[in-house]
Amino acid sequence: MKIINGGVTAAKGYQAASVAAGIKYQDRKDMALIYSEVPCTVAGTFTRNIVKAAPVRWDQEVVKNSKGVQAIIVNSGIANACTGAMGMENNKAMAEAVAEKLKLTADMVLTASTGVIGKQLNMEPVFNGINQLVSTLATTIEAGTLAAEAIMTTDTCKKELAIQFEIDGKTVTVGGMSKGSGMIHPNMGTMLAFLTSDVAISKELLQEALYEDVQSTYNMISIDGDTSTNDSCFLLANGLAGNTVITTKDDNYYRFVEALNVVNTALAKQMAGDGEGATKLLEVKVVNAVSKTEAITLSKSVATSSLVKTAVYGNDANWGRILCALGYAGVDFDPEKVDLYIESVDGKLKLVEDGIEADYSEEYATKILSGKEVCAIIDMKMGEAMATAWGCDLTYDYIKINADYRS
Amino acid sequence: MKIINGGVTAAKGYQAASVAAGIKYQDRKDMALIYSEVPCTVAGTFTRNIVKAAPVRWDQEVVKNSKGVQAIIVNSGIANACTGAMGMENNKAMAEAVAEKLKLTADMVLTASTGVIGKQLNMEPVFNGINQLVSTLATTIEAGTLAAEAIMTTDTCKKELAIQFEIDGKTVTVGGMSKGSGMIHPNMGTMLAFLTSDVAISKELLQEALYEDVQSTYNMISIDGDTSTNDSCFLLANGLAGNTVITTKDDNYYRFVEALNVVNTALAKQMAGDGEGATKLLEVKVVNAVSKTEAITLSKSVATSSLVKTAVYGNDANWGRILCALGYAGVDFDPEKVDLYIESVDGKLKLVEDGIEADYSEEYATKILSGKEVCAIIDMKMGEAMATAWGCDLTYDYIKINADYRS
Repeated sequence: MKIINGGVTAAKGYQAASVAAGIKYQDRKDMALIYSEVPCTVAGTFTRNIVKAAPVRWDQEVVKNSKGVQAIIVNSGIANACTGAMGMENNKAMAEAVAEKLKLTADMVLTASTGVIGKQLNMEPVFNGINQLVSTLATTIEAGTLAAEAIMTTDTCKKELAIQFEIDGKTVTVGGMSKGSGMIHPNMGTMLAFLTSDVAISKELLQEALYEDVQSTYNMISIDGDTSTNDSCFLLANGLAGNTVITTKDDNYYRFVEALNVVNTALAKQMAGDGEGATKLLEVKVVNAVSKTEAITLSKSVATSSLVKTAVYGNDANWGRILCALGYAGVDFDPEKVDLYIESVDGKLKLVEDGIEADYSEEYATKILSGKEVCAIIDMKMGEAMATAWGCDLTYDYIKINADYRS
Repeated sequence: MKIINGGVTAAKGYQAASVAAGIKYQDRKDMALIYSEVPCTVAGTFTRNIVKAAPVRWDQEVVKNSKGVQAIIVNSGIANACTGAMGMENNKAMAEAVAEKLKLTADMVLTASTGVIGKQLNMEPVFNGINQLVSTLATTIEAGTLAAEAIMTTDTCKKELAIQFEIDGKTVTVGGMSKGSGMIHPNMGTMLAFLTSDVAISKELLQEALYEDVQSTYNMISIDGDTSTNDSCFLLANGLAGNTVITTKDDNYYRFVEALNVVNTALAKQMAGDGEGATKLLEVKVVNAVSKTEAITLSKSVATSSLVKTAVYGNDANWGRILCALGYAGVDFDPEKVDLYIESVDGKLKLVEDGIEADYSEEYATKILSGKEVCAIIDMKMGEAMATAWGCDLTYDYIKINADYRS
């Protein structure tokens, strides 16, 4: 298994394009199109927010009923959420316009939107954008990278990755791109991740592989505790790798799942580290918990605590806030057993032993916390389960970005 | 029923004192003592955090078993949480020192601590402080106000209130003080509220009155979503008002409950409005929900959303974030029924009708949101239940305070 250049166009038979359509901002790319030369098996996971954006409602039907998906059209700037019947019509028109240009039916087109909630899409720039996108589709790595840039909102960098491995002597590729940054606390899906593969696999196993992997990747990140109305994660598989179709959970299935996990974990960590205003990635690893569920709950509680996040921003080893966040997670444990370590490229240090302060150097703790990627390791000493959650620090810039997002 | 000057010393037979003991900071008051001239019936509610501070563990025993409480000793600066066996010993020594000076037994003394988690109390300044406190106890209104100041940490103002009403022609007083500011998301109790009354009432009804009222007051506020290790709310009743002892839920009981609610609501709102770094109070009123439980969940979800709180800070009527926060609260509802209004001293404005944008002036919305107290009213149009939650905006100063709290 090896990481290769590129993202959504890395696998065989995929093309991408991007354009500055002028949906909300001028002179900034805001639409992207992903196209597969042949129909794909599709899997998707979506937000559990009761308030679902128009594209999410459209896509849930497509993923459930479609005989084959060939395109995903994405816009940033306007989320097309809380837009009522007109929002649904605009979304459908977007899918239909893409279908017409690419000679598909509308139910072969997935849609995705991200941006401000509650505003209607202006359809003229959307239609013009679609025309340009279709005429500039390309199979190059660069086309995929530009698409990853076009879906950014408050993101500061593109998020993409591709990986290759072998099945039956055939090279299989899994690539993907995602966006994040604010309103990120995925529950079930995530804020726009697009995965493409040339693997041949049954629809049932594709959905199961995606669903299971999302639980330990995107669903373990949090930027600000707000679960968006638009979270969607798509996985297309067009079969062009030429492997025998995966229809049972054999070695080939698990090889695919492993590759998928590498891509999803990397994209999830990139999203967490590039949270709105963030200066660093916070990884929270809970080990030796009673059950996986409890380990998940405990690690997410710490990763989402505003007080933990501000302390991390300040490079302050204020470990009491971590124990406090464990304590209110709703999981039963013995506070007087807990050990806590922090780790970064600068080393590893025990801050807490059996629930009380260990003998450590504040200066060294501050140095470790100054890293770009900081990990807190929490040993519950109760069982054998573990989980990892990812978040980021909470900074002045998060306030700046969100006190003034619409203007 | 009328509001009067003062706080914990307003009711008959209560004294208070405060001192700068030098526990953590120099030249800043950091200890307070409340004393009742006669033994009190006591009620208490405490944090549900698994990690409980030493004073919370002490007080839970006292409230359960004590035949009568006469003193509460409080320190700020050090929370005495995550301090193991030594923390429990120091806490006991604090209660014993107060008992000895006041000729009580230690189980007649409640303790409370607030400040940094994980550090041990330095007992020499604590003992010196207790000596000074006991020798300066006074019944004056001013003594109560100074005590309310002594328990402040990152609070910017003291929180106190007193109210009088009549039972059997006898004047009954309920007074209180509280502190808040950070790590505030009470579950069951709250971050240090002290209530004193001269009402005569049975222990069972006193506990029930307090427990019930805490649910709709302190438990409905959130500053940052972090439930502290030290949350405690105490209610003392010394019976000196001379009313016939309340032993059933008669009119007199409900009159007392009403007065208690006025004091608790006012203190809770003062805590929310003075959240760390806050510039304004955010009130979230959910009406016409299916059940009280659902109304509580929905209103708290909105009041705790980082994205709602930053928008309020920016005076930005970004209502999509409010609908989003309702949507992920875990309550089922119809997004296409929801109406949303904002209100302040500058007026009231409908932002959303049936789940989509109403026709409103952004300029007027910004004016309303610029108020010191801003209310969001959310009409679910599903049933008849309602609930109100209180929070505050999320600002640069919250980051500043918490990225550097320990230094």
